[in-house]
Amino acid sequence: MKTLAFKGYNKNSRFMKTYKSLTAVLMDHKLAALGDAYVNFAYSLVLSDRNEQPSGARVKGRVLAEALKKAGLRECLPSRMNRHMLADAAEALIVYGWLNGLVTLEESVTLLGKTEDGVEAFSQLLLTIKSRVRF
Amino acid sequence: MKTLAFKGYNKNSRFMKTYKSLTAVLMDHKLAALGDAYVNFAYSLVLSDRNEQPSGARVKGRVLAEALKKAGLRECLPSRMNRHMLADAAEALIVYGWLNGLVTLEESVTLLGKTEDGVEAFSQLLLTIKSRVRF
Repeated sequence: MKTLAFKGYNKNSRFMKTYKSLTAVLMDHKLAALGDAYVNFAYSLVLSDRNEQPSGARVKGRVLAEALKKAGLRECLPSRMNRHMLADAAEALIVYGWLNGLVTLEESVTLLGKTEDGVEAFSQLLLTIKSRVRF
Repeated sequence: MKTLAFKGYNKNSRFMKTYKSLTAVLMDHKLAALGDAYVNFAYSLVLSDRNEQPSGARVKGRVLAEALKKAGLRECLPSRMNRHMLADAAEALIVYGWLNGLVTLEESVTLLGKTEDGVEAFSQLLLTIKSRVRF
């Protein structure tokens, strides 16, 4: 079953801790650091498909912060949050979704590729994960 | 078979072109741009496992350039190449390996996690891919 392990990477991973709430996931800066790498890789695949040639992408914090708000997740966070913190929250939830097998990398890429509007694309991915999260 | 698609991402991907030689892969800067995202994500997973908490990583060009030389791949490239170009070559080959199903993300993470010496780790990954490449 080795080849299936990255479907939902690692429910058994040593580094996955248990979260009590959506807010706890969104506020985890360490999760955001890993999420940053996941988001850039997934979006690089989206752009590669779209451009029909291999491409690299760094997703802007502004896009992720707006996507978080559009997905109605702003209300899960404290009032004093700057754009950088909102972007971190989006990255944290996205990689949480992948680590827990709520979305695969393939599904992430498919969802993100449905529109060229980055905010809408990440908003849809966040909404999909949000709809599947259980605490 | 959806969940298996990212084992070797996309032999059918629109953006994968055919390469005539190892040198052609190593010299493809667009492949390197996507490879950069793959390498950082894979190594972020390695560090997450090692640190026992989610972590983000940006792999230094110096490490990748040294790994390329250690893997005996320097000789596949023209003589005038700076460190940045050597690092690009390493990124290109690594993601080529993944895109073509020569290594999975899981195997990449496992291989990279075997030693804390980054140069040795990436050298082993490059050697593994090199040993499986056919043109």
